[in-house]
Amino acid sequence: MSKLVITAAVTGSVHTPSLSPYLPVTPAEIAADAVKAVRAGAALVHVHARDPQTGKPSADPKLYEEIVRRISAETDAPICITTGGSKEMTVAERARSVMLLKPELASLNTGSMNFALHPLAAKIKEPKFDWEIPFLEATEDWIFPNTFKTLREFATFMAEARTKPELEVYDAGMLGNIQFLIGTGVLTPPVHVQFVLGILGGMPATVGNLVFLYESACRMLGEKTFTWSLSAAGRAQLPMMATAMGMGGNVRVGLEDNLYLAPKQLAKSSAEQVERVVAIAQALSIPVATPAEARQILGLKGADAVGWTTAAAPTA
Amino acid sequence: MSKLVITAAVTGSVHTPSLSPYLPVTPAEIAADAVKAVRAGAALVHVHARDPQTGKPSADPKLYEEIVRRISAETDAPICITTGGSKEMTVAERARSVMLLKPELASLNTGSMNFALHPLAAKIKEPKFDWEIPFLEATEDWIFPNTFKTLREFATFMAEARTKPELEVYDAGMLGNIQFLIGTGVLTPPVHVQFVLGILGGMPATVGNLVFLYESACRMLGEKTFTWSLSAAGRAQLPMMATAMGMGGNVRVGLEDNLYLAPKQLAKSSAEQVERVVAIAQALSIPVATPAEARQILGLKGADAVGWTTAAAPTA
Amino acid sequence: MSKLVITAAVTGSVHTPSLSPYLPVTPAEIAADAVKAVRAGAALVHVHARDPQTGKPSADPKLYEEIVRRISAETDAPICITTGGSKEMTVAERARSVMLLKPELASLNTGSMNFALHPLAAKIKEPKFDWEIPFLEATEDWIFPNTFKTLREFATFMAEARTKPELEVYDAGMLGNIQFLIGTGVLTPPVHVQFVLGILGGMPATVGNLVFLYESACRMLGEKTFTWSLSAAGRAQLPMMATAMGMGGNVRVGLEDNLYLAPKQLAKSSAEQVERVVAIAQALSIPVATPAEARQILGLKGADAVGWTTAAAPTA
Amino acid sequence: MSKLVITAAVTGSVHTPSLSPYLPVTPAEIAADAVKAVRAGAALVHVHARDPQTGKPSADPKLYEEIVRRISAETDAPICITTGGSKEMTVAERARSVMLLKPELASLNTGSMNFALHPLAAKIKEPKFDWEIPFLEATEDWIFPNTFKTLREFATFMAEARTKPELEVYDAGMLGNIQFLIGTGVLTPPVHVQFVLGILGGMPATVGNLVFLYESACRMLGEKTFTWSLSAAGRAQLPMMATAMGMGGNVRVGLEDNLYLAPKQLAKSSAEQVERVVAIAQALSIPVATPAEARQILGLKGADAVGWTTAAAPTA
Repeated sequence: MSKLVITAAVTGSVHTPSLSPYLPVTPAEIAADAVKAVRAGAALVHVHARDPQTGKPSADPKLYEEIVRRISAETDAPICITTGGSKEMTVAERARSVMLLKPELASLNTGSMNFALHPLAAKIKEPKFDWEIPFLEATEDWIFPNTFKTLREFATFMAEARTKPELEVYDAGMLGNIQFLIGTGVLTPPVHVQFVLGILGGMPATVGNLVFLYESACRMLGEKTFTWSLSAAGRAQLPMMATAMGMGGNVRVGLEDNLYLAPKQLAKSSAEQVERVVAIAQALSIPVATPAEARQILGLKGADAVGWTTAAAPTA
Repeated sequence: MSKLVITAAVTGSVHTPSLSPYLPVTPAEIAADAVKAVRAGAALVHVHARDPQTGKPSADPKLYEEIVRRISAETDAPICITTGGSKEMTVAERARSVMLLKPELASLNTGSMNFALHPLAAKIKEPKFDWEIPFLEATEDWIFPNTFKTLREFATFMAEARTKPELEVYDAGMLGNIQFLIGTGVLTPPVHVQFVLGILGGMPATVGNLVFLYESACRMLGEKTFTWSLSAAGRAQLPMMATAMGMGGNVRVGLEDNLYLAPKQLAKSSAEQVERVVAIAQALSIPVATPAEARQILGLKGADAVGWTTAAAPTA
Repeated sequence: MSKLVITAAVTGSVHTPSLSPYLPVTPAEIAADAVKAVRAGAALVHVHARDPQTGKPSADPKLYEEIVRRISAETDAPICITTGGSKEMTVAERARSVMLLKPELASLNTGSMNFALHPLAAKIKEPKFDWEIPFLEATEDWIFPNTFKTLREFATFMAEARTKPELEVYDAGMLGNIQFLIGTGVLTPPVHVQFVLGILGGMPATVGNLVFLYESACRMLGEKTFTWSLSAAGRAQLPMMATAMGMGGNVRVGLEDNLYLAPKQLAKSSAEQVERVVAIAQALSIPVATPAEARQILGLKGADAVGWTTAAAPTA
Repeated sequence: MSKLVITAAVTGSVHTPSLSPYLPVTPAEIAADAVKAVRAGAALVHVHARDPQTGKPSADPKLYEEIVRRISAETDAPICITTGGSKEMTVAERARSVMLLKPELASLNTGSMNFALHPLAAKIKEPKFDWEIPFLEATEDWIFPNTFKTLREFATFMAEARTKPELEVYDAGMLGNIQFLIGTGVLTPPVHVQFVLGILGGMPATVGNLVFLYESACRMLGEKTFTWSLSAAGRAQLPMMATAMGMGGNVRVGLEDNLYLAPKQLAKSSAEQVERVVAIAQALSIPVATPAEARQILGLKGADAVGWTTAAAPTA
């Protein structure tokens, strides 16, 4: 039985600060939450940055650099930097931090789709920041843009930096996109796929959808030529993780995907969610991968090959 | 056993003139091909317009008006006008002809996606028109934009015009979009869904994918609250139609979706493909719906409620 | 595109004479219907025998011999002899004709199940024969017995006779049985699978069930290691054949599976159903295999290696 | 979120004593293991009896009576008595204890199938009892007989005793059997279905198979008209339970289905497996049902309506 790679995605760019007081915002908070998650059992950290003043998703490479240095100073977990960004960033901005920092992994979103958060706006009664409600509401008119050209360009600079793409799949058609990119030599197997279910605009987070995607991937990509993980948004998060673990998959949890630990109970950190999946893994006798084991399972280049030095990590 | 509604989609905006000499281009050609298809058994016509000089997809309402008048002058088939348009049109341009002409049906594309035709460019050795290859190649960087706001606006003006939306579903997530639009009152069941499989960027045209979408739709929309049809791009077209008919669905054929009648044999008209599905229907003892029966099955407002008059149809 | 192998199963042991006047009963009738089906496009004939006086399913090898000689005298189609038999035969009786006649193919039913025909009894108002209604009603308490030991023994004597087993799959678990038999060396790939849907006690004849079985078979047996065909009982017969053809499968029709050609219209011969699938194949531009091509596709030993001589065929 | 009903199936008739020293055999051992499982979180107990001397599955109603009295004396958990029995019992013998004891629930196996344990024989190096290896090996030629007549008769006497049938589904076709029994009035919804996966002869224990069966049941039986639970044989047991819980289903564990707690680690009691699913439920914030809550969820008649009195329970 292969070991379980747990990813912690601690902040993302979906939720806004008013939705949970526990959402980490500053580089120090984000790094601290990530470190805590690794200590709880996560082997991999997925990183987004936010403006330290307003909590708004940011593409500023300085913020990214501070986050990854802080995490690297305290853990040996490989870091996956997003190229997803948010609604208000250009495609070039989304790529910048990965190009500069050359992490071991970076997300590569494998198609375009509506990525709609506007129903969340109604949940905020008293916003802490003026940007939050307009930001969420504006997603009614937003497309998450990832054209084939963008995919080709992102995959190319990741290959040059030996940054492994984490292929985010939100909908069934994106598997066809990956198959096309493999067929045209843009991607080289074995690839690492992350199914991201439960975003309005993509596929809902159901067991049936996960099985369909997994079986489609086996057919389209070949059963031995990909590793996979699951991210599920909202309240389906932990139940879906139990299913993914039962299927032999890896899992991602964290406040990026779900602010709650249980119905009506906010998670106080991503680590609390990690603890839950560790408990499930123990109940299933599935060994949890260390950061070093995750590197081997996913075929990563190693912490010494990234574009930042831990030595220079700022003190907290 | 309910009757089979055959839709003819005679030109579309995917193929370019150099790919087939039989692709109709002028309003007269488009209308003639549609009329022929109706005579062969189609009950519904799906209409796009092209620039009569260059064959390039056009959003010009004058062209649309000429096409629908010509078709109405010779058949009583309900007409579905596209709002999909093409790569070079704004969302507003895509809506214009439907807003003016108020047809019985109009397409409503239920989400955003990469809609990639660039692999087709390599098939054209000697382009008739300069625009063709750049048009196809540019789709590597194209997103077919249909945000939730667009969906809401399109559905609203269609409801006002009593134009039934034909909900185009290219990928699994789009069923969630429809469910959301029904849940928020933007769409009112029973809805009419058309699965469009085989576009690079959406789901491939396989029987497994069709069954998954159909069963997902039954679960998400309710089994009795939608009618459905299938469009399948490329060489899977006719085999997929046989499956859809076996499942009790309706079908769409025509040169918009597939230029061929058989491997390496171009179809000389959409009517030839209609004849094929009529033959299958006969072999299965499935009665083929007339235009009047199609109106009843789909709940259309009737030919007398559209925004053009047949009397004024220009002579050929 | 590979060629379509059409099997004609002309009488079976499910239906009784009162259900249709066209059901062939005597060896001469059965052979004549088979020959007609081959002339209409079938490449393979599936054979059961009946008592010439009463129409009751029979295991008498003399009857089988007469049937196969008559068919071989007039066609070169490979013959598949049943080992399914009927309710009133022992397992040994079911095997006997195949052991003696060594045909190119024989059915091998891959598991035990309820095989219930009792609802059919109510359809017979005035039985021609006394045995019919009790025979049908008694199936409420019948199991079609095919233990792993029977499977092993049948597969073994078929291997010795170089008779290719046609693996009948009525339910999902039977694929696991086949996988087990391959894994233990009892069966040797490539195997030939026939999905038989629509028997009460097995899986219903739906497109979703066919896709599930086919995809399960690909996973469990390996995508390139089996050929397959579909049989569907009752009114789903022809629509399911259209789906199977759309999926690249082979088909079986005939009065064994369905007495009707269309709703409320009895088929006058199995050939009429063959004509329907030939029409669908033509509409789909799928070439229909000849008997010789079917031999090659299925890897059969050839007509000269069977255990009967055509020369000695009795005259009609 | 509805509460989770955990069933403990502590001994069954599949495993033999030499396969695990922890398999309970005498009524006292079986009852003690069941009580321990209830204390660990099980709300329901599934009961088989064994010969106290040899450990061989037994149909002796005296043994059943002793077991259920002992369990009832110490817990208030509803008891489900098997009607599955084993290879060496007649159908009438299998029914006897349920007819006499009138428990709140009884298993009703919904179809016939090969039920093959013969590969287990090779795992026993030094059998404790002479019957074990022949018993296992003989299942190569065994059919688990549950004809439609048996189903009708069993359902009828259960209805008279107000014993709720627990409908065991080992293969896809059995859902059609249930649908038929509901359609003919033999069973009355809401029914309680237990999927039993992983028996050689039935469907393997995979997530894809569970999803297929669950979705098929929703379509065939109606989404609100059944409750369900999962049993999975062998090493897939706990991972499959995690999936079932993620899907909103109930679960069954115990040494009947799986002798292990983890790879190569025998479970010392069924309670150890119950503890594992309770841990998963806690991680998922799914509340675990008490026996009283299980009665309500499944619509049981109550402990005071069974055919034995707890007062008379023999002392250990």
